[in-house]
Amino acid sequence: MIDTLVTKIKKTEAPIVVGLDPKLNFIPSAILDKAYAAYGKSLEAASYAILEFNKGIIDATYDLIPAVKPQIAMYEQFGLPGLVAFKETVNYAKSKGLVIIGDVKRGDIGSTSESYAIAHLGSIDVGGEKIKVFDEDFATVNPYLGSDGIKPFTDVCAKEGKGIFILVKTSNPSSGEFQDKDMEGKPLYEHVGAMVDKWGKDLIGECGYSSVGAVVGATYPEVGKIMRKVMPKTYILVPGYGAQGGKGKDLVHFFNDDGLGAIVNSSRGIIAAYKNEAYAKYGEEGYADAARQAVIDMREDIKSALN
Amino acid sequence: MIDTLVTKIKKTEAPIVVGLDPKLNFIPSAILDKAYAAYGKSLEAASYAILEFNKGIIDATYDLIPAVKPQIAMYEQFGLPGLVAFKETVNYAKSKGLVIIGDVKRGDIGSTSESYAIAHLGSIDVGGEKIKVFDEDFATVNPYLGSDGIKPFTDVCAKEGKGIFILVKTSNPSSGEFQDKDMEGKPLYEHVGAMVDKWGKDLIGECGYSSVGAVVGATYPEVGKIMRKVMPKTYILVPGYGAQGGKGKDLVHFFNDDGLGAIVNSSRGIIAAYKNEAYAKYGEEGYADAARQAVIDMREDIKSALN
Repeated sequence: MIDTLVTKIKKTEAPIVVGLDPKLNFIPSAILDKAYAAYGKSLEAASYAILEFNKGIIDATYDLIPAVKPQIAMYEQFGLPGLVAFKETVNYAKSKGLVIIGDVKRGDIGSTSESYAIAHLGSIDVGGEKIKVFDEDFATVNPYLGSDGIKPFTDVCAKEGKGIFILVKTSNPSSGEFQDKDMEGKPLYEHVGAMVDKWGKDLIGECGYSSVGAVVGATYPEVGKIMRKVMPKTYILVPGYGAQGGKGKDLVHFFNDDGLGAIVNSSRGIIAAYKNEAYAKYGEEGYADAARQAVIDMREDIKSALN
Repeated sequence: MIDTLVTKIKKTEAPIVVGLDPKLNFIPSAILDKAYAAYGKSLEAASYAILEFNKGIIDATYDLIPAVKPQIAMYEQFGLPGLVAFKETVNYAKSKGLVIIGDVKRGDIGSTSESYAIAHLGSIDVGGEKIKVFDEDFATVNPYLGSDGIKPFTDVCAKEGKGIFILVKTSNPSSGEFQDKDMEGKPLYEHVGAMVDKWGKDLIGECGYSSVGAVVGATYPEVGKIMRKVMPKTYILVPGYGAQGGKGKDLVHFFNDDGLGAIVNSSRGIIAAYKNEAYAKYGEEGYADAARQAVIDMREDIKSALN
């Protein structure tokens, strides 16, 4: 799957993933009103509105980008109807040729991680029938439980041609509380990064990168610089650009000299672009066009930083 | 919610939580056959079978135990129908007066953790209507992202009277890869434990314990001994008893002198007891009676270890 992702990144010249993390207050009132009229103020209404909103974003951006990253928490908070919207979003984005990074941050002891890996990347066996479940292309995974929590994911990746991104250094302000602390001479995130490199060794694709990637926040560019060297064959998923404060120039260190090696996420900055002054002229009814322009501007920001 | 849990533990004299982690190969063929006849070999069939199986376990044990702990991965792997079974299991167990520990191991950056906290412990606002979602009583949470990933959970706990258990030292074989490594003079799990103690300070109930608990595996009794002192007011959820190798005598160190402070999980050892030689006489049709006897035996094992 890493080969597919890299091919799409090269083709679009956009190392960008759009985070499909809809909140109800991002959704134009015309869509919400229609949803409430049809379903009342219910989880089903939220589900309908989210899916409509996402389709608008996908339709307006799919030709420009290689991938989308739905954050499952934004759907899970609307319960079962919300998860229907998650699944439908995955299906719709796939039908438009996009790679799907399921931002699920799962991770557990071995036997349980296996179930999560099946849920998001694999197939479940029901009485001999193999059935695909949420069927994303990549999933994000939490490393706190160590190798036996990761191995079921890498096994499924090998078997099904899928990939993962493991949390190394997260973009949030308090990520350093544990991740930055010195552990036998280097910060925890470096230990995790070294393990990511190791876990990915058997899954290196034709593009030269592994299907086992890492998450390192744009908000910590100096960490990106170090981790780029610790994990030379690892694709880095970089959240924190835009709304969280990361800028184009901060991203340089996450890329290799081949111009590859990183894919940068923006969520609010794209899908709620119309709420920013720079794109206010589009208005809420133009939210999808605003998102398209925000993607184009982000692509140029990254391109000029890399040149 | 910690007060409710402790009251139930005292009443049942059973510091036990039954892990509702059904696999299809635990489910008696009579239930599976009925499911396949009605729904074919489908996710819906699995969902039906799991719920029927769980109801049998709950009916046979609810008067003996304070709580159940459904592991959401076991449901998520059956997709949306599986998550219907999760929600129905939560509802059914609640209707029998049980406390629900949602073993979801969620955790993310602040704004996303808030959505997970809403999904599992809180209410979502849809156009002014507040709607409860999965509505467990406790959820398990991963600490890797630090305080701002935890605070949305403790906020919801305070507001809704719920609780969490934060992963400190997990029961799996490779948990030590990161958790045991020396970090500025003590292992990572001790740092996390000290933070759990701190995060829980404002949520101490009438029982003297906090609604912010910790997970420490039965498979590491020496760690339990240390963490009992590091986190004196913290309830410890102890997985790893039974099938994973933890024994009654290993559990002593997880409890305080008041006989409280820990609740021990067993999953396979209870719900698939009929597959163990000791309970083979019940046969698969007697799986629920076997589970009941396994709970009674576990209660006695812990009681005799604590005396």
